[in-house]
Amino acid sequence: MFLSFDGVDGAGKSTQIRLLAEWLAARSLEVVVCRDPGGTPLGEKLRSILLDDHETPIHRRSEMLLFMASRAQLVEEVIRPALEAGKVVISDRFLLATAVYQAHAGGLVADDVWTVGKVAVGGMMPARVLLLDMPAAEASKRIARAHDRMESQGLAYLERVRQGFLLEAERDPQTIRAIDAARDPQAVHADVVAAVEPLLLAREPLR
Amino acid sequence: MFLSFDGVDGAGKSTQIRLLAEWLAARSLEVVVCRDPGGTPLGEKLRSILLDDHETPIHRRSEMLLFMASRAQLVEEVIRPALEAGKVVISDRFLLATAVYQAHAGGLVADDVWTVGKVAVGGMMPARVLLLDMPAAEASKRIARAHDRMESQGLAYLERVRQGFLLEAERDPQTIRAIDAARDPQAVHADVVAAVEPLLLAREPLR
Repeated sequence: MFLSFDGVDGAGKSTQIRLLAEWLAARSLEVVVCRDPGGTPLGEKLRSILLDDHETPIHRRSEMLLFMASRAQLVEEVIRPALEAGKVVISDRFLLATAVYQAHAGGLVADDVWTVGKVAVGGMMPARVLLLDMPAAEASKRIARAHDRMESQGLAYLERVRQGFLLEAERDPQTIRAIDAARDPQAVHADVVAAVEPLLLAREPLR
Repeated sequence: MFLSFDGVDGAGKSTQIRLLAEWLAARSLEVVVCRDPGGTPLGEKLRSILLDDHETPIHRRSEMLLFMASRAQLVEEVIRPALEAGKVVISDRFLLATAVYQAHAGGLVADDVWTVGKVAVGGMMPARVLLLDMPAAEASKRIARAHDRMESQGLAYLERVRQGFLLEAERDPQTIRAIDAARDPQAVHADVVAAVEPLLLAREPLR
């Protein structure tokens, strides 16, 4: 089973991924956690170009394609083999993030991003996307400092990102589950489990 | 006016690009020559990952997307500004190369490559593609040594590449002009000029 977490920075993805991974492991499921972009030698090289290298000009479309290249490698090198071995894969961000950051908040056409994305991932889409949602002002408070070029653009930008995520969630409510993340982590975790558990039950009896 | 040259390695692209650039310059046209992948700081970084780095595993789809990322940057940083300034741009390879090397000769679906490519180049397609064609055995003889991972796969591979180019030329004969490149450079150049001159005449009087 392939799951991804997404949402604005500061929404608590890392904590929720850890809690879900522990919850799955407690049910004897093997869990692989990965991050997108990154997660492979190629992906880490590209992540470094995308997030750490502020000297090299990168056009929005090039940026989108680099995220896709990293993602394609992550699918083939990590996600697909893990799924074929019966493991649960949790990815910290995936295709949805590119639709939101590069299109809704970045100016590209969202349909173009999805079109390229479908080719990039070779059919590998998450069974469920956990969208950790919170008001931009709340997320902003939680971000101690700007981590990278994606997140260094202020409150109006965070708000566009948030609205982009919510719009995509409306378009595909079956896959993308928006969860109010402005609560204590255990309450959020309970909603995450509620969104994931039916998939596990449909798949096989929990051991 | 935007032109590109393509064809198997060893077909004489560099020579023909130089001859055409000189021919255009002699007609008082400003010419910008670029290479794809490459031609920008980002593109050269990606070119180095694609062609020189044999340690990092790169899946075929990731490779295709990296070529596209480099190309998107080349379009926005070099090609589009030059065209807007009234210059003629000649690119050493462009989108056609990815359709051939990564799809026809590399196993991806050609339609997928064109779909991604159309998004990547943001509508910037060559007015004419000069396809320098020659038998694989002839090209192989002219390649002193394997230059990079693209070209280090022997005669059967070169033949698949050649047939891929010819197939694409059949699909879009209006844009892609196959030119017999197994002749002396001046004879090839005459055919290149014959394929390009009508575009210049249609565009504006030659000064």
